[in-house]
Amino acid sequence: MSQSQSFLNFVRSAAGITPDEEQQILRRFQTVSLKNKEYFLREGEVCKRIGYVEQGCLSYYRLLENGKKAIVQFAFEDWWIGDLESFLQRKPAQTFWQALEPCELVCIGRDDFERMMTISPVFRSVFTKKTQTAYIKALERSAWDKADSAEQKYLRLLKEYPQILKRVPHYDVAAYLGITPESLSRIRKKVAKAR
Amino acid sequence: MSQSQSFLNFVRSAAGITPDEEQQILRRFQTVSLKNKEYFLREGEVCKRIGYVEQGCLSYYRLLENGKKAIVQFAFEDWWIGDLESFLQRKPAQTFWQALEPCELVCIGRDDFERMMTISPVFRSVFTKKTQTAYIKALERSAWDKADSAEQKYLRLLKEYPQILKRVPHYDVAAYLGITPESLSRIRKKVAKAR
Repeated sequence: MSQSQSFLNFVRSAAGITPDEEQQILRRFQTVSLKNKEYFLREGEVCKRIGYVEQGCLSYYRLLENGKKAIVQFAFEDWWIGDLESFLQRKPAQTFWQALEPCELVCIGRDDFERMMTISPVFRSVFTKKTQTAYIKALERSAWDKADSAEQKYLRLLKEYPQILKRVPHYDVAAYLGITPESLSRIRKKVAKAR
Repeated sequence: MSQSQSFLNFVRSAAGITPDEEQQILRRFQTVSLKNKEYFLREGEVCKRIGYVEQGCLSYYRLLENGKKAIVQFAFEDWWIGDLESFLQRKPAQTFWQALEPCELVCIGRDDFERMMTISPVFRSVFTKKTQTAYIKALERSAWDKADSAEQKYLRLLKEYPQILKRVPHYDVAAYLGITPESLSRIRKKVAKAR
């Protein structure tokens, strides 16, 4: 086992976990390293594992029919990545997960995942809660995205992820906000002046 | 028991359900009627039940700090409604669920829900899968919303819910699309001309 302390803490913090269950879970997770720009998943591939980000930063995006790249979210340390639809239904993904920095992940494969969902109530509970939380957050973001101006979206992003401009390329931040890189430049200048 | 055939079909379609489990589930769901404009849930209330829509149409929205109403989604027949965050965490909702027509729902309360999640693997599996699917759809919509123009969003909405313009007020459709009612009127005219 070579998982980081943060992953061990995450597993150990699960309510009601026994030492035996902890070992069962830990030995099913393997470390995976990604280079900068390397893909964890590409459109058309089946997502065979989900991963916990120990170190690094990734983007989750779709290439739409109109040719645009829509970034759904970024993931930093202590986040989970993977395409749930592809992973659970074993069908080709319509999304990409790409490293924006060198990354260290700990991953569990589909068969081990299914086994743990069957035998471990703690694992099942943690995964179910993570999915619920992610869903709730997605709905919340969706509401803001509909009603906020581009500048409001940018300010909210900065508040939520103060590190984003240091770690994510300008054009990816623009794709996340759903605006052009030029518009983002204008907003950044305006906000910088106002501070 | 006074549930509709569609709800019975939904329950009976669950993989591996036994007649005993079916009865356990059905007797925990109560019918609830809502008048047009009546609220199933208001901001500040704790969401004490989740419901299956047997008949009718509702909107799920937030009132944002900037005073705007952001409609996250609509629900029609065979959809589930409720605020998951408030329901599961027993905390005040930040959202509203409002009837846009007279509605018939079948609802399960928090204690019965928890009991079924504990004792019924079928119930647990159905609820978990529904949440996963809703999350996957929310991410998909989020990607489109970022990259589509208002007109593309409108055309996608029409394709996904052909009934929407007949059942949902014009200003609510605009709030869902994140545009003004005037912009929606312009788009509707343009699209009607082109057809």
